[in-house]
Amino acid sequence: MRRTLFGLSVLLCAGAALAQSAPEAGLTARFDSQISSDEMRGWMKLMAAEPNQVGGPHDKINADWLLARFKEYGWDAHIETFKVLYPTPLSETLEMKGPKPWKAMLQEPPIPGDSSSTAKDYALPAYVAFQGDGDVSAPLVYVNYGMIDDYKRLATLGISVKGRIVIARYGQGWRGLKPKLAQEHGAIGCLIYSDPADDGYSVESVYPKGPARPPRGIQRGSVADMTLYPGDPLTPGVGATDDAKRLTRETAPSLMKIPTLPISYADAQVLLGTLDGPVAPGNWHGTLPITYRVGPGNRPVHMAVKSEWSLKPAYDVIATLKGSMWPDQWVIRGNHHDGWVFGASDPLAGQIAMLAEATALGGLAKSGWKPKRTIVYTSWDAEEPMLLGSTEWAETHAAELQQKAVLYINSDGNGRGTLNMGGSEDMVKFAGDVAATVIDPETHVPVGQRRRAVMGVHGLAGGGDDHQKWMEKTASDPAKDAPIAALGSGSDFSPFLQRLGIETLDFGFGGEGQDGGVYHSRYDTFEHHSRFVDPGFVYAGALAETIGHAVLMAADADLPLQQAGDFADTVAQYADEVKKLADARRGMAETQNALLKANAFALAADPTEPHADPVALSPVPKIDFAALDGAVAALKTSAKAYDDALAVKGAGLSPEKRAQLQKLMQSLDQTLLNERGLPGRDWYRNLVYAPGRYTGYGAKTLPGIREAIEEERWADAVTYIGLTSDAFKAYAARLDEATAVLNG
Amino acid sequence: MRRTLFGLSVLLCAGAALAQSAPEAGLTARFDSQISSDEMRGWMKLMAAEPNQVGGPHDKINADWLLARFKEYGWDAHIETFKVLYPTPLSETLEMKGPKPWKAMLQEPPIPGDSSSTAKDYALPAYVAFQGDGDVSAPLVYVNYGMIDDYKRLATLGISVKGRIVIARYGQGWRGLKPKLAQEHGAIGCLIYSDPADDGYSVESVYPKGPARPPRGIQRGSVADMTLYPGDPLTPGVGATDDAKRLTRETAPSLMKIPTLPISYADAQVLLGTLDGPVAPGNWHGTLPITYRVGPGNRPVHMAVKSEWSLKPAYDVIATLKGSMWPDQWVIRGNHHDGWVFGASDPLAGQIAMLAEATALGGLAKSGWKPKRTIVYTSWDAEEPMLLGSTEWAETHAAELQQKAVLYINSDGNGRGTLNMGGSEDMVKFAGDVAATVIDPETHVPVGQRRRAVMGVHGLAGGGDDHQKWMEKTASDPAKDAPIAALGSGSDFSPFLQRLGIETLDFGFGGEGQDGGVYHSRYDTFEHHSRFVDPGFVYAGALAETIGHAVLMAADADLPLQQAGDFADTVAQYADEVKKLADARRGMAETQNALLKANAFALAADPTEPHADPVALSPVPKIDFAALDGAVAALKTSAKAYDDALAVKGAGLSPEKRAQLQKLMQSLDQTLLNERGLPGRDWYRNLVYAPGRYTGYGAKTLPGIREAIEEERWADAVTYIGLTSDAFKAYAARLDEATAVLNG
Repeated sequence: MRRTLFGLSVLLCAGAALAQSAPEAGLTARFDSQISSDEMRGWMKLMAAEPNQVGGPHDKINADWLLARFKEYGWDAHIETFKVLYPTPLSETLEMKGPKPWKAMLQEPPIPGDSSSTAKDYALPAYVAFQGDGDVSAPLVYVNYGMIDDYKRLATLGISVKGRIVIARYGQGWRGLKPKLAQEHGAIGCLIYSDPADDGYSVESVYPKGPARPPRGIQRGSVADMTLYPGDPLTPGVGATDDAKRLTRETAPSLMKIPTLPISYADAQVLLGTLDGPVAPGNWHGTLPITYRVGPGNRPVHMAVKSEWSLKPAYDVIATLKGSMWPDQWVIRGNHHDGWVFGASDPLAGQIAMLAEATALGGLAKSGWKPKRTIVYTSWDAEEPMLLGSTEWAETHAAELQQKAVLYINSDGNGRGTLNMGGSEDMVKFAGDVAATVIDPETHVPVGQRRRAVMGVHGLAGGGDDHQKWMEKTASDPAKDAPIAALGSGSDFSPFLQRLGIETLDFGFGGEGQDGGVYHSRYDTFEHHSRFVDPGFVYAGALAETIGHAVLMAADADLPLQQAGDFADTVAQYADEVKKLADARRGMAETQNALLKANAFALAADPTEPHADPVALSPVPKIDFAALDGAVAALKTSAKAYDDALAVKGAGLSPEKRAQLQKLMQSLDQTLLNERGLPGRDWYRNLVYAPGRYTGYGAKTLPGIREAIEEERWADAVTYIGLTSDAFKAYAARLDEATAVLNG
Repeated sequence: MRRTLFGLSVLLCAGAALAQSAPEAGLTARFDSQISSDEMRGWMKLMAAEPNQVGGPHDKINADWLLARFKEYGWDAHIETFKVLYPTPLSETLEMKGPKPWKAMLQEPPIPGDSSSTAKDYALPAYVAFQGDGDVSAPLVYVNYGMIDDYKRLATLGISVKGRIVIARYGQGWRGLKPKLAQEHGAIGCLIYSDPADDGYSVESVYPKGPARPPRGIQRGSVADMTLYPGDPLTPGVGATDDAKRLTRETAPSLMKIPTLPISYADAQVLLGTLDGPVAPGNWHGTLPITYRVGPGNRPVHMAVKSEWSLKPAYDVIATLKGSMWPDQWVIRGNHHDGWVFGASDPLAGQIAMLAEATALGGLAKSGWKPKRTIVYTSWDAEEPMLLGSTEWAETHAAELQQKAVLYINSDGNGRGTLNMGGSEDMVKFAGDVAATVIDPETHVPVGQRRRAVMGVHGLAGGGDDHQKWMEKTASDPAKDAPIAALGSGSDFSPFLQRLGIETLDFGFGGEGQDGGVYHSRYDTFEHHSRFVDPGFVYAGALAETIGHAVLMAADADLPLQQAGDFADTVAQYADEVKKLADARRGMAETQNALLKANAFALAADPTEPHADPVALSPVPKIDFAALDGAVAALKTSAKAYDDALAVKGAGLSPEKRAQLQKLMQSLDQTLLNERGLPGRDWYRNLVYAPGRYTGYGAKTLPGIREAIEEERWADAVTYIGLTSDAFKAYAARLDEATAVLNG
């Protein structure tokens, strides 16, 4: 379900050395020869023929069909079923009464020639899962993207959302934060629409002429409070098996309390056009041909949502190729198969690549090759409502996974353009090695080289935060490994990375052809995908090769996959960022409070408009980062010693020592977990990577420290400097043990 | 004609000491008591009753009426007439032929209840003065704001404007650069429109419901090449008197060569909607409900303009109150009286304030007060077509002005909100002293205090270039004088500041109520102004008080007005900026050229779209700034010595020494002039302030150096580091002479 927002890339000069993770000579070529774009095209057409949301008949048909395919290709496969809460709408209303009554459409009308015109469930309106059923009438207030800073800005305009319905546009932060922040600020209903500035005619010609979102297109999605925990809202932390102990709907903290509806920009234009009050701040303006005003509107809006709340089955397809040498070391690879409607680009574009990999791996196995490690392919169900299939499976098998998993590789849909790579930053070199082995279908250079070019050109243009600038600068240096993105949430990697501390990588192509234009809409169809997103299915092939090579390299590598120096360099950068953040917040608080004292905000305001001073910022105390600095410095030293020892001694290790080394390094990233988890959300245990409490999918690195500073929780900042430093010490100690084995 | 784009502010703590420039006790209060908002309201209604463009009957009526008023108030007044080139359109065409023929309106339809519905010359279409007559047909290309960087970006999309007509939106840089850059890039015609994102419904509700530009509103203006020289295109450098030697139209370098038309966004939407080709880059998108594409369009556009090119009279009204003590020291104050149509906000809102000042000064004089210096009030004609009235007068009287002028004070229209101040930066303290004496009608604190608050709040929000950040930071320190803006062009101060080196200040209120919404349109009427821009004409009063106090303080001050330390601090900041600019350009060239070498731009591009690599940047040599650093350091020393000496010895000077001191300091800023002028444009002689060659109205400081670096003219950079350093040395030497007089 995660939306690719930015394409990131290996090596301005081609020809990276393939290091210790190179697969058997000729193996990748034999793998590649079995990938067929035509075959993938046929699979997508089949799987996207009908809507395949959780609990729908076609979702089960697809799971069964996938199971049969894995078995046909020689895999040991089964379906593991969970029982998860998953509501679907029974009725929806959005209207304005009065002399000129108006009703919102809440449906996406069929487009001739497109699957949207032939499917059988046209009556199901658009919805967001896990909103709170209700029936409310109130004036409307426009809250821009509905993010935390938008509410602060709104307060300075002297406008409250209390007892009102808010309308927010999609973007800037994750969808689910919009109703969450709305209800925290006292709103009683929430509408979310796609503004054409971000997702409509301003981006490209609209479907069916072009790829962009048409006026009646609607983005569905989940609004379960993923920042607390993903997975089934009723079973946090444990698998949603038949006999699981469940919370009630009333006590499940990740369910929203206010009714929330996603709407089209055609409907939003009518509603926004009725608003009075001050003109919205300049950066709140979209590109509808209206004057964006904040409101409140003088015509009350009536909205009502009623859903069917039964438990539904989630069908995870699990397929295994047993390892010949180290069967208890697992390389896991996953992509979900459920969609919001037809789900062609999201998720099936990734699913067909995964199935092509499974075909090719099966083919290699049939011809006599055996992976040294066990390969586990997982086709998740119920990812869209909030990573339910993957989370429940990871929670059910947590102990075994922490013992056996070497790497989890994810994808979630696919498009055309640049290879995006994210994940655990001790896997930076491995990811770069993988990306050096696949040729980009458009430019005919390695996909890693193209990714590096994109990062370099983007860096020249400027923009982005300090971390992005650092990544782009690092990627411009051919002597360095090109950084990968830190992962937040929005796809099935989350439970593996953030709860279990398993090494994780996520791959996908994108950035060209506006694959986002029909995101989570009824128009994400086979026709749209094959016309605009990946004509010829060549990038489905590129994704299958990329992840296939990664799986082969991970499954057959004799030595651990990590490069510790990249991790140490990256966390040093993160540590710098949080220190700068504290300084910047201190300066900001001092300046803002001096301006408040001088009454400057009131003096600067137009007295004919409503105004309220901003809330005073809490003065930022002196924060002692010495423990963090010390831990990072020690980590750098240990990392260099380990990498050097591996390079010199790795190839000549005895089988016994190699086994010792593998055991130490398999669970290396679990040293980054802490049982108490992050403040207020103990499901998240990784002290380096988390989805942001106020960004959602967007990652927050060193989240215990960073978010404490952002949210003025100074005691938490001190506590998590300690805990994070301890985690780095544990990571370094593990490296020291591994170095001792290498040098011993 | 200059459009106020940003409101800037004095003293977070009220009560600035009034220093040596305080006027006689009680004088400002007696002045203020004679300012009447009702009277100004009546004057505007009268002067804006009919269109008052150059050469029109109402322009002459207004000049005669102003003359009569000055005489009535006891001034020695006359009209000085120049003969200037000023074209008006005879016919205009803009159309698309073919099966669905379309014609642009090129007129602004009347709005009931507004002067636009009653004036007699409705048939005159909108136009831009000094475009090149012609009749062309060609495909259309969208060039965003039509600035230099837009053409660079366009080239990387593989699209040329050669032989085509461009359509540019207003904004980012001065209007006249749009046809100039278009013709330099080979275009044969140019259309300019106001996008609703910048100037229309996105900003506010449109007129008559609100103040913003309606769909059929059109911005007129001059496109004479002001970056070469302002004033009559036929008489650069000399007054356009009856017997002046004139260039021919064919040889006048400031005339555009291609036909150019300003159009409404209603018409632009039709034209832009026909364009094919790649989607325009994201920051090229306006808020019309279309997909912005670059083109070229597949329907040729036909445009034709034919003008009447005779010389027209420009009537400058010149009025004098003779000085009692130093009649040969002149304090000059000006605002123009010609408008594009009715010209209510621009320029009459400033003109009525000036007339109120003249009334009040006349009243003081009648009651026995005499200014020590001579006060010259100037009501300029023909400012709109390119500062013709002021420039021709300044050129005609150049020698006398350089000998006698102490200060030129300008305004050009007026609005509601914050006091904007710009000018010579040795007048920063004087400007701040003035702004401490006037109470803001809305907030009831001194207008300078409000200005400082606005700067502080804006600084907290961030944004802007290094210089703006420095200004806002400096303004936040109550111990420092709040900086004023450097002046580029766009109003009548230009010839005084940039050609003659006369101390200059410019004042105007603005920033609230969207006074820009009808800028240079037929809807800039009395009704619009009094409803939206300055209801009650209270800011007309505030402007009259502000400039009136400045005139009184300047006319009666015994000591020189300058504070040299502010100037030294500011130029030190400018010197830092140009050094940083050179470093940034060097880094940019190295990075860009490395990316070119690695073929990164081609690899990063979507191969399904046209692409061309950017042109390689010229490597930035090591530039020696030592001379500049030395001159700035010496200037700081001399400035401090002078300011200290003036503070200690100023009050006790003998009349002889005071006269010596006045003589030295009267022409202080003329030390910043250089006879060879700026590269390629010798009309501009000031080495500290110039309008930017590629920004237009926007100032470039240290322009000889800064623009040389920006434009890769490395030899010029070296030459102008020398010339500018020499100017600072001359300025410092003059200060040393003055210090010697004070200490002698």
